[in-house]
Amino acid sequence: MPTTGTVIIGQSGGPTAVINQSLIGVVKACQARPDVFTRVLGAIHGIKGILDGNFCDFAGEDAATLEVVAGTPSAALKSVRHKATPEDCQKVFARFKELNVRFFFYIGGNDTAETTNIINEMAHREGYDLHCFHCPKTIDNDLRVTDHCPGFGSAAKFVTQAFMGDNLDNRSLSGIKINIVMGRNAGWLTAASCLARAFPDDGPHYIYCPEADFTLDGFCRDIESTYRRLGRCVVAVSEGIHGPGGKAIIDLGEVDSHGNKQLSGSGALGDHLAEVVKQHLAKAMPEKKHRVRADTFGYLQRCFPGVVSESDAREARQAGEAAVAAVLRGEKSGSIAFKRQDDPYRIECFVTPLPTVAKDTKPMPRELLNGAGNDVVAEKIVPYLTPLVGTLPKIGQLKGVR
Amino acid sequence: MPTTGTVIIGQSGGPTAVINQSLIGVVKACQARPDVFTRVLGAIHGIKGILDGNFCDFAGEDAATLEVVAGTPSAALKSVRHKATPEDCQKVFARFKELNVRFFFYIGGNDTAETTNIINEMAHREGYDLHCFHCPKTIDNDLRVTDHCPGFGSAAKFVTQAFMGDNLDNRSLSGIKINIVMGRNAGWLTAASCLARAFPDDGPHYIYCPEADFTLDGFCRDIESTYRRLGRCVVAVSEGIHGPGGKAIIDLGEVDSHGNKQLSGSGALGDHLAEVVKQHLAKAMPEKKHRVRADTFGYLQRCFPGVVSESDAREARQAGEAAVAAVLRGEKSGSIAFKRQDDPYRIECFVTPLPTVAKDTKPMPRELLNGAGNDVVAEKIVPYLTPLVGTLPKIGQLKGVR
Repeated sequence: MPTTGTVIIGQSGGPTAVINQSLIGVVKACQARPDVFTRVLGAIHGIKGILDGNFCDFAGEDAATLEVVAGTPSAALKSVRHKATPEDCQKVFARFKELNVRFFFYIGGNDTAETTNIINEMAHREGYDLHCFHCPKTIDNDLRVTDHCPGFGSAAKFVTQAFMGDNLDNRSLSGIKINIVMGRNAGWLTAASCLARAFPDDGPHYIYCPEADFTLDGFCRDIESTYRRLGRCVVAVSEGIHGPGGKAIIDLGEVDSHGNKQLSGSGALGDHLAEVVKQHLAKAMPEKKHRVRADTFGYLQRCFPGVVSESDAREARQAGEAAVAAVLRGEKSGSIAFKRQDDPYRIECFVTPLPTVAKDTKPMPRELLNGAGNDVVAEKIVPYLTPLVGTLPKIGQLKGVR
Repeated sequence: MPTTGTVIIGQSGGPTAVINQSLIGVVKACQARPDVFTRVLGAIHGIKGILDGNFCDFAGEDAATLEVVAGTPSAALKSVRHKATPEDCQKVFARFKELNVRFFFYIGGNDTAETTNIINEMAHREGYDLHCFHCPKTIDNDLRVTDHCPGFGSAAKFVTQAFMGDNLDNRSLSGIKINIVMGRNAGWLTAASCLARAFPDDGPHYIYCPEADFTLDGFCRDIESTYRRLGRCVVAVSEGIHGPGGKAIIDLGEVDSHGNKQLSGSGALGDHLAEVVKQHLAKAMPEKKHRVRADTFGYLQRCFPGVVSESDAREARQAGEAAVAAVLRGEKSGSIAFKRQDDPYRIECFVTPLPTVAKDTKPMPRELLNGAGNDVVAEKIVPYLTPLVGTLPKIGQLKGVR
């Protein structure tokens, strides 16, 4: 049985469509046990809120609001990209002791798990009785141990629907269309675009992920080949693609406090690829004018209200609830992970030690991509993705227009 | 009573989320009267399909498929951006006579209405008995006469939801966010972003439309002022913004066969504006680092499956049906337009002469924008937009995090 005391919950890293489900999952599970969780506080802007003493008290929130917040994308407590230093952690403990904080739930990705782990280790070293839990969240689906990450399914649904629409658009007014998808090191979100294929010859016709080396030559050859065959070509390109040896395709220069390079919030990669393809086609097929366009899906992918996977929302809530259940079982620390069963699809939550999730990510297995590295292996990846993404709009096609 | 004969239906211009509703509206209304409409053909790629003899016969399509196609975004018959020349029209007539075409329905924007009008005038001059109808379609909402255009409501819904999510994202991880919205000459779609404002201080904090002159100085000053007050700023910028005298902000060079410049399919405008703001803030507020990002919503706006306005879908279908009803009343030509009543909201379809819709568009009334030209006048525009966009996701906020 755990000690009793104050709960602090925080959200960290890039927001998702369902990160508030995990938050409300933690909050409601704590509120159900006031004998253990004497006070439930939200740290505003994550660890920064703890350092600044900036909290929201969930006692002041009504149940109806909590449910609407659960269904609202992005971090209701606001987020942060600040990595806790040892000095920060000292201050965090001072605050924890002051407020009798005995339960810390931090919702985020691998960087967030790392922060949680550092705080947990410090508490352990100082003999301060603290329960430290990490709830997973990332659209990149690149956390270790877990089968998949809350936030990914909804982002993958957005990407799939975007490609469904864009394939139809391109089918209607032909040309070359390059779409840049989020995912720093992991190609999962870009790979999910394969679910958009409803009919033969549907795009995306190629899928380029960071797990395979990318070359501009191969890219141009791929596109030219499909363009000659179908008169059009739609491709999915991860923002994280790189040449052999990890060489960047273009470099925007900006770096955040975790050493991550800025990839989103700019159309530069897409525009560069479009320009390269234009120049290639002008030489390879000089007989006609070519319509080459690029869209960068950008931040819309990660928290678009109204495009949310049902299973993702449900599981994100379960992850929050599971963290509180683990505390009530007496567990001291860990990260919530999903074990998956298919036929029928369902998940089970379990606790994995913080260091198994913290810091490093895992890439998508290379064998989910074909040998050429320009597409997924559909029969391997589609069964994995389908239940995560959930119901998709039905696409129709006239028999007489194939 | 009209003559009897073959129907040709075509779709033209940029696709929308509901252009197939109009198509299926025409098809089913024609199929209901086989005594008049002896054969119902779809021209594949619009006028180009007529010139090439490339048709789909709707007799070969089953009713269930037609309903799925109606709910599918983009042009099921494929589209075209080819403007009919007088020589093209001669060939069109040769084909019409050959197939005993007596009914021509062309779904599209002002350019499409112009093509329909040219064909109608030629038929009239040659004494060929032809019913020529234009069904309106454009996400830009810039057709003359009609209260609003099928396709706009769904695109506006996408833009609104995109800004809802992006405002939440920016609230969570602060900074400056610039979003570029479609709309060559008309600011309607950009203006619709105002519907995303659910709570005080919600973005978009500024809205820049082509109906007001744009200056980089004013833009930077606006953003700096809100950024100093809130620590963040989200702005909506039309791709069609221009300086005094119509001067382009940047020039991509490409022009289509109607003389329209390429605006979409590139992140260049957004990236340029982000760079200008970065440089401005580096000088104006050198004490800290500034996070400035731009997203260009691109083609996703116009045919995103699953984000469709209920009223837009319904009205697009009605527009198709109304065109056939007009023919059955014996009318020879025209464009379908909407007359609107509020409390409760409803529309009535009527026929307006083709020349009143063809060729020229109408901008959004300047009085819907404020004097400074950096925002809409919400009390004027929100009641107009709300029924067109339909139900929006509910956004929640914690009382303790304002």
